[in-house]
Amino acid sequence: MKGYKGDIVYAPLPGRLETLEDGYIFVGDDGLVKGVFPVIPEKYAGADIISYSGRLIMPAFADLHLHASQLPNRGLGYDEDFATWLSQYTYPAEHRYDDPEVAGRINARLIDELWQNGITRAVIMSSTSFTATSDLIGQFVKSGLGAYIGKMNSDYGAFGEPNESTKTSEKETLRLVELFGGMRGKVQYILSPEFIPCCSDEMLTFLGNLAKERGLPVQSHLAESPGDVEMVSKRCPADRDYASAYRRFGLFGQTPTVMAHCLYLTEEELHMMKQLRVYAAHCPHSNLNMPSGRHLPVKKLLEMGVPVGLGSDVAGGHTLSVISNMVAALQISKQLALDSPTLRPLTTAEVFYTATRGGGSFFGKVGSFEQSFAFDALVIDDSPLDDFTRRSVAQRLERFIYCGDSRHITQRYCGGVPVSKPS
Amino acid sequence: MKGYKGDIVYAPLPGRLETLEDGYIFVGDDGLVKGVFPVIPEKYAGADIISYSGRLIMPAFADLHLHASQLPNRGLGYDEDFATWLSQYTYPAEHRYDDPEVAGRINARLIDELWQNGITRAVIMSSTSFTATSDLIGQFVKSGLGAYIGKMNSDYGAFGEPNESTKTSEKETLRLVELFGGMRGKVQYILSPEFIPCCSDEMLTFLGNLAKERGLPVQSHLAESPGDVEMVSKRCPADRDYASAYRRFGLFGQTPTVMAHCLYLTEEELHMMKQLRVYAAHCPHSNLNMPSGRHLPVKKLLEMGVPVGLGSDVAGGHTLSVISNMVAALQISKQLALDSPTLRPLTTAEVFYTATRGGGSFFGKVGSFEQSFAFDALVIDDSPLDDFTRRSVAQRLERFIYCGDSRHITQRYCGGVPVSKPS
Repeated sequence: MKGYKGDIVYAPLPGRLETLEDGYIFVGDDGLVKGVFPVIPEKYAGADIISYSGRLIMPAFADLHLHASQLPNRGLGYDEDFATWLSQYTYPAEHRYDDPEVAGRINARLIDELWQNGITRAVIMSSTSFTATSDLIGQFVKSGLGAYIGKMNSDYGAFGEPNESTKTSEKETLRLVELFGGMRGKVQYILSPEFIPCCSDEMLTFLGNLAKERGLPVQSHLAESPGDVEMVSKRCPADRDYASAYRRFGLFGQTPTVMAHCLYLTEEELHMMKQLRVYAAHCPHSNLNMPSGRHLPVKKLLEMGVPVGLGSDVAGGHTLSVISNMVAALQISKQLALDSPTLRPLTTAEVFYTATRGGGSFFGKVGSFEQSFAFDALVIDDSPLDDFTRRSVAQRLERFIYCGDSRHITQRYCGGVPVSKPS
Repeated sequence: MKGYKGDIVYAPLPGRLETLEDGYIFVGDDGLVKGVFPVIPEKYAGADIISYSGRLIMPAFADLHLHASQLPNRGLGYDEDFATWLSQYTYPAEHRYDDPEVAGRINARLIDELWQNGITRAVIMSSTSFTATSDLIGQFVKSGLGAYIGKMNSDYGAFGEPNESTKTSEKETLRLVELFGGMRGKVQYILSPEFIPCCSDEMLTFLGNLAKERGLPVQSHLAESPGDVEMVSKRCPADRDYASAYRRFGLFGQTPTVMAHCLYLTEEELHMMKQLRVYAAHCPHSNLNMPSGRHLPVKKLLEMGVPVGLGSDVAGGHTLSVISNMVAALQISKQLALDSPTLRPLTTAEVFYTATRGGGSFFGKVGSFEQSFAFDALVIDDSPLDDFTRRSVAQRLERFIYCGDSRHITQRYCGGVPVSKPS
C-alpha cells in the first residue's frame, strides 16, 4: 500500500471533474486505486506516503490511434494533396520500416515519446511488417507502458498495388497471434485491418473469425473522408452503411473495437457504436492537417453514450502531445458549434475525460482514480506556469492543457508502477 | 563584418522559399544583411565566420498583436462565454497589472518568453496603466529585443464602466509620447486605442491628431466579431464601414497601422487595407479559442497584396509560440478551403512568410535575409527532430514548424546583435 499526496484531479464522467487540493490517493500492491481522501484514513495510517505537494496528480493519457511506421513523417508533406502525401511520404516510410534495424530505432523513439507525453496506454497500428510488429511488442513489454499493438492487414489495392498478398498477411497475422495473442497484461495483440477499401473480403472474413475465436480486440479506420465512405458503399452495396459492413465481417463490436476518425457517420451508425460499445478515436490534429473535416460532434457522442477517446493519428497528426490534441479538439468543437446552432462546444472537463477515462476504458479500468482503477497517473509540476495568482485545481488543469508541455510532467505511473524513461 | 554559416531559409515573397544548404550570410557592423552566398566571396575573405553547420538559420519571428497585462490569463477561462471571460479573467488581470510590482514581474516574464519563442519584434498593447507601460518600454530597451508598445486607450463604456476617464487617458498618453514618442530605434511608442466601441469620439480624434503630428504608428482591433461590427455600424452610421470609421479619425493608414483580427471585413475594406498599407494581424489561436471565427482568408490577402502578419493575441490566444500559431493558421486555412471552393489553403511557405517578412516589415526592413535587411535571425538545432532520413532545408523548416518548440532555438539575433536570455 502506498499513498500519493498532491493536488488531485480526475474525471469519472464526461464533464464531471473531481478535484482535491492537498489530498491523498491510496494504491494497493496490486497497482489499483483504493480511494481518494482529504486526510489519511486510519486504516492506511501505516502506508508509505510519497509527497507531490503542490503538484497536480492526474490520470495518465490514452492514445487510441497511431501508426508506428509513420512516426518519422510527423510535420512533413502537409501541403501536399492526399495522393502525393501517400506516395511521397507514407509508403516510403512504410518500406523503410521493413528494415528491422530502422524499425528498432523508430519503435524505441516511439515508446520514448509516448512516455514523454504521459501516454501510458496506446492503440498502435504498426505496419504490414511482421518483424517490426514483433519488435514493437517486445520493446513495449520491457518499457512498462501499456499498448494494444497489431500488424496492419492491407491486401487490397484501393490506391494502386496492394501492400501485401492475402496469403502472407494471413500467415503472418496467425503467427503473431500464436506468439502474442494470449497476452492479457498491459501489452496485448489487436487485429488491425487497415480499412475496408484496403482489405479483401477474404481478409476481412479471416480477421472477423480470428477475433471471435481468440477473443481479440480490433482496430481500424471508419469514415475519415467522403471518399472512403463512397468506396465502401460501392464495395459493399448490400450493407446499409460503412459500420454495417464492418459488422457483417465480425469486426464491429463483436470483440472490443476502436475505430479511428468516424467523421462522416449517420445517426444509425452512431447508435450502432453506442449499442455495440465501439470506440471512436477522435484525431483532431489529423483531421485538421489532412484535412478530413471537423464533423465529429464529440459532445454529442459523449451525451449519447458512444465511447470516445483521443488519437494522435501520427503521422496524419503531427504530434503525440495529448494536450495539444485536447486543445485542437476544443477548438474544433467551438467551430462546429459556430456552424451548427444545435451543437454546443466541448468543455475542458469533457475533453479531459476523453483523453483519460474515455480512451483509457478501452484497456479496462484505466484513466480515472475511482476505486479499483489501475493507478495510471502523471505528476505535473505546473509551477513554471504560475501566474502570480492563486488558482483552483480545475484552473491549473485547464492552464496545463493549453500552456503545458512534456517538460512539466515529472513522473509517470502505469498500473501502479513508476515508469522511468525508456531510452 | 561577420559571416554566419548554416542551412539558410527565408521567404522574400509570400510562398517563395529561398533555401541554401551549408551557405553563408554576411552581416555588416551596422547589423544589416550584406548577402547570402553558397561560398565565401573574395571580398569577405577576412570576415569572422561563425559556424552553425547543420543547423537552420532563419529570420526571427514577429508577433503583431498581444496584450501584456493578459499574459497571466493564458490557458484560463476558455470555456466561459465572452462576458464572463471579461469579468472573471480579463478585467481582474488588468487591475492587478496596475500594481507596479506585479507589472514589473509580468513584463519581465513577457520579454523572457518572447525571447524563448524567437520573437525579436512585437507590437504590444500594454494596458491602460501609465506606469506599467513605462516599465515595459524600459525593460524592452534593456533586453535588446524590438517592440512597438503603447498604453491602451479605453475611455468609453461599451461593456459597463469605462476603464479610464478621457482626461486621464489623454494626459497619460501625452506624457508617454513626450517620454518615448521620439524613439526611432528597435523600441518605439505606438498609439493604441482599444477599438472604436471602447473609445469616445474625442479620444479617437485626439489620437488621430497625435498620430499625424508626431508621425506615430497605430494599433487597434478591427472586426473581431459580428457583434463589434454591429456596434461600430450603430456608433458611426455615416461611415461606410468599420475601416472607414477608423480612417475618418486618422487611425487607418495615415501613419503605419496594424489592426488585429480583421475577420469580418467587406471586399472594400480589404481593398482599403491594401491601398493604405494597413496591416492585418492574423491571430489564429485566439480566433479559435474565443471563438471569433475562421473567416480571415489569409491566402487571399497575400494574393491581393494586403500586408499581413501573425499575432498571438495573448490571452485570447493561449500561447506566444509563433510556430503553434503558424500550424493553427494552416489548419484554419484548410477548413476555410473545405468550406469555400474558391479559396485555397495556405502553404507552409506562405505562413512562414507571414510570421517573418510579412509581420516583420511593419518594423522596417525586417524578417528576411535580403540585402540591407536587419539581421534578425534564429538558429535552430533541429537534430532532435531528425527522422533517420535525409531531408531538404524546406522539409526541415516544415518539420520544425509542426514539431519544434522553443527548446530547438539555440540562438537569437536582433538587428545583428546576439540576444541573451533576458531574465
